[in-house]
Amino acid sequence: MALKALDYDSLNENVKKCQYAVRGELYLRASELQKEGKKIIFTNVGNPHALGQKPLTFPRQVVALCQAPFLLDDPNVGMLFPADAIARAKHYLSLTSGGLGAYSDSRGLPGVRKEVAEFIERRDGYPSDPELIFLTDGASKGVMQILNCVIRGDGDGILVPVPQYPLYSATISLLGGSLVPYYLDESENWGLDVNNLRQSVAQARSQGISVRAMVIINPGNPTGQCLSEANLREILRFCYNEKLVLLGDEVYQQNIYQDERPFISSKKVLMDMGSPFSKEVQLVSFHTVSKGYWGECGQRGGYFEMTNIPPRVVEEIYKVASIALSPNVSAQIFMGLMVSPPKPGDISYDQFIRESKGILESLRRRAKIMTDGFNSCKNVVCNFTEGAMYSFPQIRLPPGAIQAAKQAGKVPDVFYCLKLLEATGISTVPGSGFGQKEGVFHLRTTILPAEEEMPEIMDSFKKFNDKFMTQYDNNFGYSRM
Amino acid sequence: MALKALDYDSLNENVKKCQYAVRGELYLRASELQKEGKKIIFTNVGNPHALGQKPLTFPRQVVALCQAPFLLDDPNVGMLFPADAIARAKHYLSLTSGGLGAYSDSRGLPGVRKEVAEFIERRDGYPSDPELIFLTDGASKGVMQILNCVIRGDGDGILVPVPQYPLYSATISLLGGSLVPYYLDESENWGLDVNNLRQSVAQARSQGISVRAMVIINPGNPTGQCLSEANLREILRFCYNEKLVLLGDEVYQQNIYQDERPFISSKKVLMDMGSPFSKEVQLVSFHTVSKGYWGECGQRGGYFEMTNIPPRVVEEIYKVASIALSPNVSAQIFMGLMVSPPKPGDISYDQFIRESKGILESLRRRAKIMTDGFNSCKNVVCNFTEGAMYSFPQIRLPPGAIQAAKQAGKVPDVFYCLKLLEATGISTVPGSGFGQKEGVFHLRTTILPAEEEMPEIMDSFKKFNDKFMTQYDNNFGYSRM
Ligand SMILES: Cc1ncc(COP(=O)(O)O)c(C=O)c1O
Ligand SMILES: Cc1ncc(COP(=O)(O)O)c(C=O)c1O
Repeated sequence: MALKALDYDSLNENVKKCQYAVRGELYLRASELQKEGKKIIFTNVGNPHALGQKPLTFPRQVVALCQAPFLLDDPNVGMLFPADAIARAKHYLSLTSGGLGAYSDSRGLPGVRKEVAEFIERRDGYPSDPELIFLTDGASKGVMQILNCVIRGDGDGILVPVPQYPLYSATISLLGGSLVPYYLDESENWGLDVNNLRQSVAQARSQGISVRAMVIINPGNPTGQCLSEANLREILRFCYNEKLVLLGDEVYQQNIYQDERPFISSKKVLMDMGSPFSKEVQLVSFHTVSKGYWGECGQRGGYFEMTNIPPRVVEEIYKVASIALSPNVSAQIFMGLMVSPPKPGDISYDQFIRESKGILESLRRRAKIMTDGFNSCKNVVCNFTEGAMYSFPQIRLPPGAIQAAKQAGKVPDVFYCLKLLEATGISTVPGSGFGQKEGVFHLRTTILPAEEEMPEIMDSFKKFNDKFMTQYDNNFGYSRM
Repeated sequence: MALKALDYDSLNENVKKCQYAVRGELYLRASELQKEGKKIIFTNVGNPHALGQKPLTFPRQVVALCQAPFLLDDPNVGMLFPADAIARAKHYLSLTSGGLGAYSDSRGLPGVRKEVAEFIERRDGYPSDPELIFLTDGASKGVMQILNCVIRGDGDGILVPVPQYPLYSATISLLGGSLVPYYLDESENWGLDVNNLRQSVAQARSQGISVRAMVIINPGNPTGQCLSEANLREILRFCYNEKLVLLGDEVYQQNIYQDERPFISSKKVLMDMGSPFSKEVQLVSFHTVSKGYWGECGQRGGYFEMTNIPPRVVEEIYKVASIALSPNVSAQIFMGLMVSPPKPGDISYDQFIRESKGILESLRRRAKIMTDGFNSCKNVVCNFTEGAMYSFPQIRLPPGAIQAAKQAGKVPDVFYCLKLLEATGISTVPGSGFGQKEGVFHLRTTILPAEEEMPEIMDSFKKFNDKFMTQYDNNFGYSRM
């Protein structure tokens, strides 16, 4: 019997090929267990509000007023909203034509793109053009749009760090391109060695792949490192020489936990390098309202900025964006607020600073509790989280565990993470979902559980791990104690 | 010199190929004129709030409270919000885990999907399964997701009505598939003749194309017709015989202006047909918060329901949806509200009915003013808008105009629409953007300008048209007067 178009065997193969581990087997199992009544700690995805982080008050006030603009005419509005939130809501409504219910320009509201450009100028000290900034429904959608322009077929390769955030591998599969891995060096705190890059490109070329783009995630996910200025220079020089467009995923730029390792944008480093680099290297940088101390994941707001992309190509990207009409407008306003938060002297300034500082400082402490907790297990080693929202410990698994995993038909780290989930309710993502060197195993967890629950979570992790090791390693507790 | 990845000549060809006329040349020119200070009436896209339609109060109150959940603890909340909006906000917040700031499940909030299923059950009289309903960032994104699963390459054909809403042609180009046109019959009020379908399929097959899916837009865009039950049966039987998945774009199901032509869903007709059809025909139906009397375009909320799609395929669609994490959560709540509006007895019921009826009745009157206005021009013929938001008059252009267009390097209807825009500020879309028979010309305008402005707009259209005709047709004003 002939197949129908939406029968499994007749689906687009690229759809079947792609994998997205952050919401893969572990997440599905965790959802099942939750339905059965088990308490699950979802640390599989960087989703702060889902783990109890409170939204910042001021931006929520502004967007609530934009959703209910009739409140602005209500004489009682001042009883529930401060004057600066009211003024800001009026400002953003004046940037729309028709409020939050009207499609905006497909690149986003011009007024908000202008605010983003001003933010970038303040951050980097270089001009930024609102016409080269597109607002998106989250950074994910922006990355997908750009990769769609770059990838023409499986002869086109994209350099992606390993370990990586699987948005990249999944999107490359979906678009039918080739992922060209370059390995981050765990023993160098997940640093990037340009020699590795060269090898990766050479190897891809020897297989007939034309490498067209390079992805960096800075600060790193899942690896948590911040790239140094020197490293960024090397990368940009490499992109210049190899004619690669650099995709700079900088969604964690606010999430910095070590003063010695500040965030520096790829755009700034590129402009600092001067001609010919600053005029030649094609760069697309991504940002989001989902991360930082905002954590407004469910709003789906992001932007990308294009540097050295020819106007005709910008037009093509605009055309494709217009097929889906416009990014959601309320998240565009969150983006506006993120890039122009309350200023000293504003009524809401103190509260805003208190809230945002509170979140960042707590994240910094949680990063430390978590790294220390993992490192207190003798078969676990974990680099410190310099930035982003994740901890990515290496778990040394004994042959007995690897054997048992094989018998269960599971990859060893999936086996370990499933056991962890069943025993403790902690829902992590196995390292294999991000890529890792052969024979080495990791898991990724977010640093997002509430600070007061952190010691207990690390304790229950340690208990599980020790029991697991005792079960699968006859020597555990003896030889290495 | 070698090209860079984002140079025009090295872009993905499918990106360059796709066209999206709704925001194409006419829209870009209109935006320019607006910047220069000219008053533009944007009737190029069905965007009601941009033309002054006010949002429905109750849903906006609910979503504003969900954005600012701290208001629910404020003793003064009752001064700005009615009790039923407060209760509803609490209800929706209880369906999230982490409010609007947390990524939801990638299919959307289970609680909202349940409300959608209940709505479909009430509408059609048949069961609907929330597990087969996915929420999306607008119907556009849903259509793109499904076409992405169906299209494997240019050997795969999708039957699309001509004229059509160019989301379909653009997405098929972008995904590298083949559009197989079937013509709607203008002289039969844009009816669909199944014999035409058969011819289209036969012709595509003779070119080696395997036809896999069929799109219907019901009510039609740009054509405004409602498909009859008999017609839907024929279509479903045809899909059964040809093993096509039917994509039912039903985003205008609330926009009905003729009592003799009610909306009937494809799902209901399919279920009415019974076995084997009801168990075999693959159907995906799309809906949105952008249309109806809601017009909440900027929120980006939609859903699709799948019928007779195997579980393994549903899983694949889920996996792909998860790459972009989740649809925006506030629009999910709009969707919940749309499918479960206030009930008789609720505090906000009367206001909700007054507002929604007011909008629909005015649209009905505007549809008539517009059709009559077009038909009062002797070189224009226009079918009545039975549903949706558009008027799609045929403009008979004289040889002189066609000649002049040629000299200007423009398609004749683009030439006409550009002149109309420059003369009157009315921003329409030429018929060629939707597809039309060779040698026949149309334009599309929405019926959305404010009712009180309608007579003036139609008057200025008529004046322009008569002047245009006098200029390009020596006989105009004489022979046919
Ligand atoms: C590295 C990285 N990039 C992009 C994203 C996507 O974020 P969003 O689509 O919510 O903006 C994430 C989300 O976790 C991420 O970790
Ligand atoms: C026929 C049709 N389908 C789908 C859409 C997309 O609507 P949205 O993506 O806003 O839900 C539109 C918008 O105009 C339309 O006319």
